[in-house]
Amino acid sequence: MRQPLSRELKDLLERGRDRQLRLAVTGLSRSGKTAFLTSLVNQLRHAGLEARLDLLPAAREGRLLGARRVNQQDLGVPRFPYDPAMAALSATPPRWPEPTRGISELRLTIRYRPARPGWFEGDSRQLTLDLFDYPGEWLLDLPLLAHDYPSWCRSQASLGGEQRAAHFADWQAAVAGLDPAGEADEARLAEIAEHYAAGLRGAREAGFADLQPGRFLLPGDLTGAPVLQFFPLPGIAEADPEALAALPETSNYATLARRFRYYQQHIVRPFYRDHFRRFDRQIVLVDLLGALNAGPERFQDLARALANLMQSFDYGRRSLLSRLFAPRIDRLAIAATKADHVTPEQHPRLVALLEALLAEPLKDLRFADVPVRALSVAAIRASEAREVEHHGRRTPALRGTGLDGEPLLLFPGEVPERLPDDAFWARQGFAFPAFRPLPLEGGALPHIRMDAALDWLIGDKLQ
Amino acid sequence: MRQPLSRELKDLLERGRDRQLRLAVTGLSRSGKTAFLTSLVNQLRHAGLEARLDLLPAAREGRLLGARRVNQQDLGVPRFPYDPAMAALSATPPRWPEPTRGISELRLTIRYRPARPGWFEGDSRQLTLDLFDYPGEWLLDLPLLAHDYPSWCRSQASLGGEQRAAHFADWQAAVAGLDPAGEADEARLAEIAEHYAAGLRGAREAGFADLQPGRFLLPGDLTGAPVLQFFPLPGIAEADPEALAALPETSNYATLARRFRYYQQHIVRPFYRDHFRRFDRQIVLVDLLGALNAGPERFQDLARALANLMQSFDYGRRSLLSRLFAPRIDRLAIAATKADHVTPEQHPRLVALLEALLAEPLKDLRFADVPVRALSVAAIRASEAREVEHHGRRTPALRGTGLDGEPLLLFPGEVPERLPDDAFWARQGFAFPAFRPLPLEGGALPHIRMDAALDWLIGDKLQ
Repeated sequence: MRQPLSRELKDLLERGRDRQLRLAVTGLSRSGKTAFLTSLVNQLRHAGLEARLDLLPAAREGRLLGARRVNQQDLGVPRFPYDPAMAALSATPPRWPEPTRGISELRLTIRYRPARPGWFEGDSRQLTLDLFDYPGEWLLDLPLLAHDYPSWCRSQASLGGEQRAAHFADWQAAVAGLDPAGEADEARLAEIAEHYAAGLRGAREAGFADLQPGRFLLPGDLTGAPVLQFFPLPGIAEADPEALAALPETSNYATLARRFRYYQQHIVRPFYRDHFRRFDRQIVLVDLLGALNAGPERFQDLARALANLMQSFDYGRRSLLSRLFAPRIDRLAIAATKADHVTPEQHPRLVALLEALLAEPLKDLRFADVPVRALSVAAIRASEAREVEHHGRRTPALRGTGLDGEPLLLFPGEVPERLPDDAFWARQGFAFPAFRPLPLEGGALPHIRMDAALDWLIGDKLQ
Repeated sequence: MRQPLSRELKDLLERGRDRQLRLAVTGLSRSGKTAFLTSLVNQLRHAGLEARLDLLPAAREGRLLGARRVNQQDLGVPRFPYDPAMAALSATPPRWPEPTRGISELRLTIRYRPARPGWFEGDSRQLTLDLFDYPGEWLLDLPLLAHDYPSWCRSQASLGGEQRAAHFADWQAAVAGLDPAGEADEARLAEIAEHYAAGLRGAREAGFADLQPGRFLLPGDLTGAPVLQFFPLPGIAEADPEALAALPETSNYATLARRFRYYQQHIVRPFYRDHFRRFDRQIVLVDLLGALNAGPERFQDLARALANLMQSFDYGRRSLLSRLFAPRIDRLAIAATKADHVTPEQHPRLVALLEALLAEPLKDLRFADVPVRALSVAAIRASEAREVEHHGRRTPALRGTGLDGEPLLLFPGEVPERLPDDAFWARQGFAFPAFRPLPLEGGALPHIRMDAALDWLIGDKLQ
């Protein structure tokens, strides 16, 4: 077959000439990854026509000609299910797309006219945009690389409050009688590990996010493999480290420690090596409103999870990440999603709260010279902003349709500008509803500030 | 941590001293792999006590002391679900275990007394037995390595008869308008490929076995990946090979051909490299009675599938296999399963029929000097042999319980000793029922000739 230039070489050249960009979208489950990526593709597909992208200069200036899906590069990575997502949004009544599992990929070719055409180049140029979507839960496993098994056990023992602990009651009962020095029984360890995984699943269902090991939540083809059958051993903190290390290879302790190391080497590291380090830019989605809805313990949990997650973007010399590889993400965005669930005048507060929540990680990132920006977006806007008369005053409100099909008109409350204090939680001043997507009327998906996100993530490549 | 000898080195030494054996169980779906492996573990666990293993000398002579499950070696391979299988068989009413998906593993340590104890060795010895279970469908992909994409298309076009073709009608309609030279549209190729996969699944449900590519039936984590989105292009046989090769990289033809090559390199080869070549011995299970029940087209299909499958065991110098690696399986068994579904005097006919069906592959194997043996077994016997009076003559019969709970007493028919001819199919003389497992009464699982299978597969290591 005629192959004038190998695929890899061509990709390399395109990148060298700024014509290729690898952009990853991540976030904890239910943060809105699928909606974000669907909308991103949809806006770029409609860029030349109906899309409203005034905050993206190339679009505003009429230089963005459109985008086309082309064959992705890595044939072994699932394709991002754009068509099924659009089908769900176009259904009667419209539905939210099914969440993705694991990593997925989609490649776009974007045509645009440069702001100042060069001498030798034609009228239009191409940018190849590789889009990736992967679970933020995988990033929660990075801190696990800094541990050995005993220190990981200690770190997990100190996590969370009563609500979280309640999900692990069955596991606590099952693990109680396990002697670290005892001979390992695979079937029994598997059973205790299944209680642990059930605890993680239950906690996630209840809105908790700071959950390790992340793969226990999406085991895929590893279901039933010993590498996913470990858990922290309670009481290890008090044990003598040398005595532990001297336990025989077939003991419970040594068996669990071996599985922990295998998980580090064969699950966590390969993701960073094969995928993460190849992303040029990333956007992290955060469902801040959901956490405000869920109450103080889960809000604290989200804060801890995000602090963990952000370590993956810390390029400092002494960071965990730099021990794995020389990092090279050149731009990062952090977005509070579902902004359409609060009234427009609350949006600046949403960004302020996101920045307050991430104050420490953001300091680290800025110190490490990683360009980062915080935003609020609604990838697929599902409500309309209105004003209503209330006691003779005009106040802002949202109009939309509930998931049950009931029309809603409401004011969901004020977003705190700073980290919420006890007074805020005592008032319980916040309750946002879930909206069903608006019916599609042809054209691009309605959104809030997707153009601002696009400008930060790819705008400079369209100059 | 104290590690006097690395795990790998220790394994290597054990193997060198004949103390370790890697035994794989395979077969097409519904051939009885899960029941076989469950029974094999169960018999060895009960070997010193209740198990009836008279055909295994070490057991008959009281030298087999028992077996214990120990931690498996490869932490990334799912453990064979022995406990859930036993739980299903012990339920009221008893159920057949859930079939396994993909590869799984289980390690046993067997203690035995050698027939002639050596000078320096103690009274008992250990054999470490690694058991593997994997889908026979994966072996059907080996012949695919001998093809390039156009020749594979031709090979698939000539397959099967009307009943099989009916499952692919939707795919035929979808692929009809696809121009090999046209620009590839990922979404459209994905849709046509889904029709193809649905055809394969439908054909398998209907009892067909000769289905490629095998991974389309068990996609696992590759669901939605382009590597599982190819299919044969009809009409390629008439096309000019040079014209095809000159088609651009983005054409439908070149896109499908690229995915086909990726499938060969990243799916088929790794299984042979990482797993298959490490098995010392294998047993292939065949549901011959099921095919007899299903009629001539499916029986022919099974014959073709088995001929394909057996290529994986052909060590001849010019074989497909020897191009991949230097093969080393030192013993092979082929077993017709579910022998308890016919009366005992039919068992020799079952073996004769199996040998007739595999006559050509068996010739190749014997020529290549691979020790191979054909057997009939019932891994978990679900019926009892009886005699009944019929028109004044005593005739053999089976007693059991149907899947619906109804007691059954019947003579299922005669197994043909040779490949069935038109006369046999015209008589429709054969119909065996599905039995529910017998209630467990403690002790070992009831079986037919599991001891003969064990003797051939591991007996020489227990001398």
